[in-house]
Amino acid sequence: MSEPTLGVHSESGRLRQVIVCRPGLAHRRLTPENCDDLLFDDVFWVKQAIRDHAVFTDLMRAEGIDVLDANDLLAETLDIPAGRAFVLDHRITLTTVGAGMVEPLRLWMEALPGADLARWLIGGLTVGDLPFAPEGLFGAWLGKAGFILPPLPNMIFTRDNSAFVHGGVSLNPMFWAARKPETLLTTAIYRHHPKFAGRVRELFGDPTRDFGPASLEGGDIMPVGRDTVLVGMGERSSAQGIGLFAQALFDQGAASRVVACRLPRTRSAMHLDTVFTFCGGDVVTTFKEVADGITCFDLRPDGPGKPFRVTEDRRPIFEVVAEIIGYKKLRIVPTGGSDPAERAREQWNDGNNVVALRPGVIVGYDRNDDTNAMLRAEGIDVREMPGAELGRGRGGGHCMTCPTIRDPA
Amino acid sequence: MSEPTLGVHSESGRLRQVIVCRPGLAHRRLTPENCDDLLFDDVFWVKQAIRDHAVFTDLMRAEGIDVLDANDLLAETLDIPAGRAFVLDHRITLTTVGAGMVEPLRLWMEALPGADLARWLIGGLTVGDLPFAPEGLFGAWLGKAGFILPPLPNMIFTRDNSAFVHGGVSLNPMFWAARKPETLLTTAIYRHHPKFAGRVRELFGDPTRDFGPASLEGGDIMPVGRDTVLVGMGERSSAQGIGLFAQALFDQGAASRVVACRLPRTRSAMHLDTVFTFCGGDVVTTFKEVADGITCFDLRPDGPGKPFRVTEDRRPIFEVVAEIIGYKKLRIVPTGGSDPAERAREQWNDGNNVVALRPGVIVGYDRNDDTNAMLRAEGIDVREMPGAELGRGRGGGHCMTCPTIRDPA
Amino acid sequence: MSEPTLGVHSESGRLRQVIVCRPGLAHRRLTPENCDDLLFDDVFWVKQAIRDHAVFTDLMRAEGIDVLDANDLLAETLDIPAGRAFVLDHRITLTTVGAGMVEPLRLWMEALPGADLARWLIGGLTVGDLPFAPEGLFGAWLGKAGFILPPLPNMIFTRDNSAFVHGGVSLNPMFWAARKPETLLTTAIYRHHPKFAGRVRELFGDPTRDFGPASLEGGDIMPVGRDTVLVGMGERSSAQGIGLFAQALFDQGAASRVVACRLPRTRSAMHLDTVFTFCGGDVVTTFKEVADGITCFDLRPDGPGKPFRVTEDRRPIFEVVAEIIGYKKLRIVPTGGSDPAERAREQWNDGNNVVALRPGVIVGYDRNDDTNAMLRAEGIDVREMPGAELGRGRGGGHCMTCPTIRDPA
Amino acid sequence: MSEPTLGVHSESGRLRQVIVCRPGLAHRRLTPENCDDLLFDDVFWVKQAIRDHAVFTDLMRAEGIDVLDANDLLAETLDIPAGRAFVLDHRITLTTVGAGMVEPLRLWMEALPGADLARWLIGGLTVGDLPFAPEGLFGAWLGKAGFILPPLPNMIFTRDNSAFVHGGVSLNPMFWAARKPETLLTTAIYRHHPKFAGRVRELFGDPTRDFGPASLEGGDIMPVGRDTVLVGMGERSSAQGIGLFAQALFDQGAASRVVACRLPRTRSAMHLDTVFTFCGGDVVTTFKEVADGITCFDLRPDGPGKPFRVTEDRRPIFEVVAEIIGYKKLRIVPTGGSDPAERAREQWNDGNNVVALRPGVIVGYDRNDDTNAMLRAEGIDVREMPGAELGRGRGGGHCMTCPTIRDPA
Repeated sequence: MSEPTLGVHSESGRLRQVIVCRPGLAHRRLTPENCDDLLFDDVFWVKQAIRDHAVFTDLMRAEGIDVLDANDLLAETLDIPAGRAFVLDHRITLTTVGAGMVEPLRLWMEALPGADLARWLIGGLTVGDLPFAPEGLFGAWLGKAGFILPPLPNMIFTRDNSAFVHGGVSLNPMFWAARKPETLLTTAIYRHHPKFAGRVRELFGDPTRDFGPASLEGGDIMPVGRDTVLVGMGERSSAQGIGLFAQALFDQGAASRVVACRLPRTRSAMHLDTVFTFCGGDVVTTFKEVADGITCFDLRPDGPGKPFRVTEDRRPIFEVVAEIIGYKKLRIVPTGGSDPAERAREQWNDGNNVVALRPGVIVGYDRNDDTNAMLRAEGIDVREMPGAELGRGRGGGHCMTCPTIRDPA
Repeated sequence: MSEPTLGVHSESGRLRQVIVCRPGLAHRRLTPENCDDLLFDDVFWVKQAIRDHAVFTDLMRAEGIDVLDANDLLAETLDIPAGRAFVLDHRITLTTVGAGMVEPLRLWMEALPGADLARWLIGGLTVGDLPFAPEGLFGAWLGKAGFILPPLPNMIFTRDNSAFVHGGVSLNPMFWAARKPETLLTTAIYRHHPKFAGRVRELFGDPTRDFGPASLEGGDIMPVGRDTVLVGMGERSSAQGIGLFAQALFDQGAASRVVACRLPRTRSAMHLDTVFTFCGGDVVTTFKEVADGITCFDLRPDGPGKPFRVTEDRRPIFEVVAEIIGYKKLRIVPTGGSDPAERAREQWNDGNNVVALRPGVIVGYDRNDDTNAMLRAEGIDVREMPGAELGRGRGGGHCMTCPTIRDPA
Repeated sequence: MSEPTLGVHSESGRLRQVIVCRPGLAHRRLTPENCDDLLFDDVFWVKQAIRDHAVFTDLMRAEGIDVLDANDLLAETLDIPAGRAFVLDHRITLTTVGAGMVEPLRLWMEALPGADLARWLIGGLTVGDLPFAPEGLFGAWLGKAGFILPPLPNMIFTRDNSAFVHGGVSLNPMFWAARKPETLLTTAIYRHHPKFAGRVRELFGDPTRDFGPASLEGGDIMPVGRDTVLVGMGERSSAQGIGLFAQALFDQGAASRVVACRLPRTRSAMHLDTVFTFCGGDVVTTFKEVADGITCFDLRPDGPGKPFRVTEDRRPIFEVVAEIIGYKKLRIVPTGGSDPAERAREQWNDGNNVVALRPGVIVGYDRNDDTNAMLRAEGIDVREMPGAELGRGRGGGHCMTCPTIRDPA
Repeated sequence: MSEPTLGVHSESGRLRQVIVCRPGLAHRRLTPENCDDLLFDDVFWVKQAIRDHAVFTDLMRAEGIDVLDANDLLAETLDIPAGRAFVLDHRITLTTVGAGMVEPLRLWMEALPGADLARWLIGGLTVGDLPFAPEGLFGAWLGKAGFILPPLPNMIFTRDNSAFVHGGVSLNPMFWAARKPETLLTTAIYRHHPKFAGRVRELFGDPTRDFGPASLEGGDIMPVGRDTVLVGMGERSSAQGIGLFAQALFDQGAASRVVACRLPRTRSAMHLDTVFTFCGGDVVTTFKEVADGITCFDLRPDGPGKPFRVTEDRRPIFEVVAEIIGYKKLRIVPTGGSDPAERAREQWNDGNNVVALRPGVIVGYDRNDDTNAMLRAEGIDVREMPGAELGRGRGGGHCMTCPTIRDPA
């Protein structure tokens, strides 16, 4: 039986295969003191978060979607010698763990089953976790509770570190150093896991290279169809990163148009998908308070070997998007709530960060009951998952999914 | 039928009557932007928080406890002319709402039913809520969404603004200006509500007076029995405030010993009850990481008209408390969790902030499953309430209750 | 020889008498760690700051101005029994220093020479400064280096805690609790020092009373002449405070018009005088980037016993002020600098916070050479004082002076 | 005439050649709003800072020291085609300035005189500085005032981005991304400037490579003689960075011992040289409050091709250093000041950050008069430079010098 062809051709067509990453050890590492440094917004109740995440994946599986978990994919990848070598060669180095630690660590890790090794790579590794006393200055510096490898709690937001765009994938250079290792792990999966190896066209990015200020994150990338990609331009995805990405897409014929959406500088607009997602057909949900402040820049190829052209598109983003996806006008479902405070709370709780399973069927958090009610009033079938724990990480269903196969809308 | 005698004589004897305050409008006012200013740690899902709070009060009512809600008590108090006058005289003044606003506001408020007025007083009042356009500079300054009266979301933590100590009550001078109005409202209830009027002996405090740096909050006050009161000394309850309180108790014969427990300066030790509560008998639950850093000062009266004596008690707080409540040694249930990170998370989620309904029966949040399991292993009957929403305010069952009648242990 | 009549009738008429406060012990108390809590922006080199302050007062004395220092005035006031009693009665209380400390502290302080006592009251008092070991809980809590009385480093900005308006004075209710004691000390001077006792008409304020959110600071108060007072309305001076102040002026016939100038919410616009001051005639200096965002509200009395009327004045502040002081148009000298960054730096360094000694003669910091050059180009005689140290407190010549006698412009 | 041999063999032997970097355009770019992002502690009065810096260099030249300025060295380097190509190849790239900007920028820059180009590279370059309108998304994103190349104000602290150790140099991988470009510019000088080209042995580092968490900064590197290097280990220089550095030194025979000094985590101990510097002979000056908390780790080579050995040295740093430089005991001059607050202020103002011109002759800031007096009492000749402006960048004479030729002590 051959695997189906990978590719994501819309934001709301039928979803067929998706990568998620259930919570675990990385979140057990979090404390009120360290979570800021680890870029996680709050601590949560890990056991409950795991149960809630299972509700989410069950909702998707019930729709016949092939749900893959990055924990498992990585474990399987690490059981393949070339996959293991690729990860360890780049994760356990003189610059990451210091002189004196590389060899003993590598020796120990080489002998671990893939599942155990995946657990430490995602969940973080402390000196105290080792079955031996580490030599070298780094070990002495860290003490027993110090992290040799810091945990990657944001890995549950699989949307960000890679993104399928049409037939290929972008291996995203993350904005924060603390999230860069995620891209390495995902790249290993795409290159070495049997489900992906040899079947993934890499369009952009390279986790073994430093991209400096040219950052790009998947929460900002939306292949909306008609050969066009929307990209949020803000704190996380820089103009330099988007420019390189667009040029790469154009050079490889992977898109014919990129629309860079400049986000206003507010703490509530981290990624484009925190203020704007698609529900199917002409229905979108958005936090208008922020989305109305977006400015669009139209990027188009200018012929082989030439840099793309940039034009400011002064229309509201909703008009730009309507034209792209072929509607006269979008039906816009704003964040629910009868007053600005309620809307601000529901946006904060990812009210607009929904993921479409197929046109008109989406998953959102239960807590955003006002937004969900308004979506239903527009005919959208909203399936709810518990958001009390997962929502504390400041990401919803859209953030927690990396579609690998999705039909056109 | 006469009302039972008010008085709190322990931290874990049978609870007979208690004041709570269900969430509501004040929490609907919160946004991610304003919650810091309003001293609330996070926004929550208000509808769910109300349901969860009802679970809590049902648990207490099932034990035969008379559960009073401050929203209702205040509404009934405001339907009594003297109660309404007391509140409005001190809440609607030239210094709080400015010249030009006092009279029209008072006029409008005088005509409101008590329940409506209570709702605005606790929930906050914006210019847009008024049926008239306010005159005066303050109204012009505020604009439509500005708060004439800011909301009091921390009022759900009824523990803090007043505290019954043996047969009387302390009307606490709160640390933050934003919480001071709570004490005024509670004082109105004690002075004018039929359930309390004429039956409450005021031991300390006066919400119409400025106490400067002499602050005191109920989360730090624990009448542990044997005529003794523990008081947490930290950010919220100052040495000056505790000194005045102790002297007042001694002068009125309301206690013969006060133990001031100096809390270490950490963000996780806001009040004594965030790191230490009683479960009945010799069982306490505590966040040892902080509690081990407490230093005790013993305060004793030195005869009429003379200031109390202070002695540092160099024993660990657990030994001091054991001696007070008449045990050789306490059975100490530390915050649950197999590693420091888990313990830090459970403490953060109020794992140690439990309230005893009677000896051996307590209410805690469901999310602190490790702590709860350890408590059960010591024979404690832990009743669980949902903490996903309520816990975001950084307070548990102890914070959300102001016992008015509790038996000795 | 009789003392001249007190009164301030303009912002740029001849200055005849002024109160300043040279730096000293309070600034020696500052460290990089505690200066935030003490509301001082940075630490400075105290010895040099004292020398630089002397340059400033010499510049004023050379113009024949009677320069009084608050340190000396307070010392002399404390040598008068009634003055000492007033200060100690309100500064050394159960709420400020706690039970057990009031009596021994008072006993010791009663025996100190006025100059010594003034030094501790302004400079702060630690447990280690006492010749005896303090009893009581507060002393135990503080430890040796703890402040029984915190220092008042912002007292060098004598402009703020009181303000002469025409023939009377406002005893300002300060915004921050840490600055409130300043007003008490200044009030003692006005009531008991021979230079002022019986000669000062108190128009507003009372340092023994709590004004809640109704705050007012002198850096926002400008009696610009023609019976009119400009008042900055922002973080420090609230709408409630300004309303009370205006009503008090109107009720006592001390002004016939108050213009409340709503400042934009930016960290660089603390007080009105940080963005706008007068140089004499029609010349003002201003940080246009902020001043252009000011909205004016016109306050006028509406007859005896009636609240004042408020009208929004939609003109730019410069037009409003021109009309008040009788010019067609102001000559506006913006913050110097050839680009926005330079202007932002000079404003930050108090480029616009100048004090007029007489029409056309002002004192500014040497470091604002661009602004000073532009002022000179308009014919203003700019006398320079060193700003390297004093400027670190974020206040210039205007902030550091409290005029007590100034002619009309 | 041949150039003298480069090499730094002590911290207090005769200084013969040094690189500094006078303030300029980069500091004119700073505002109170942007200085945090640009990692500069405060804004300063640039004209005065330039004058004060000249006082500093004059003091050194008066001692016969060859003082080189990085501004000039870079200008001259850029006038050499290979030097210019090296810098532009790595500074003007797709990742730094984005697609569409590389070519026009390079074209324009190629035509600029070296001095002008150096000015933009160090001082920063805005869109408005260009003689043409930039194409590409990055230009559109930035707007006119946005930085294409951010300024490098910390370049005045030439100590940090490179460090001569005995006969070679370390090209330091800086901790903050905002300072990494400094190392590129300095490397260009060493490789291409006639004074250095072909005469500098590169021991460690490569500005074209990403070192991840392995950071190292010169303020932490002290070649104290006897083939030994002290290295501060803290926020800026990580255990991984120090390990790589030590191994590189050992492998190349450039040192036989490295002592890693673990700094306590406090905001006042950024680099080792902010709490500890050498004055000549057995005299050092130190902020004991922090230095007493340092733990030393002894690193020694273990034979060719083998990782170095690490041993914790439990002695106080002062004993370790005394032994290294051959004294029984150091004469320790602590930060001056009669109380902890004064000492904290003088340390904050770089009281201990002095640079030795020759044994017993040092340069310090005038403002640290207490520390300076104590140093003089130990026989040290302290030459003073004005610190009012330069000191605001939080660095003293040691930070502002990169010795290239210094004799053994």
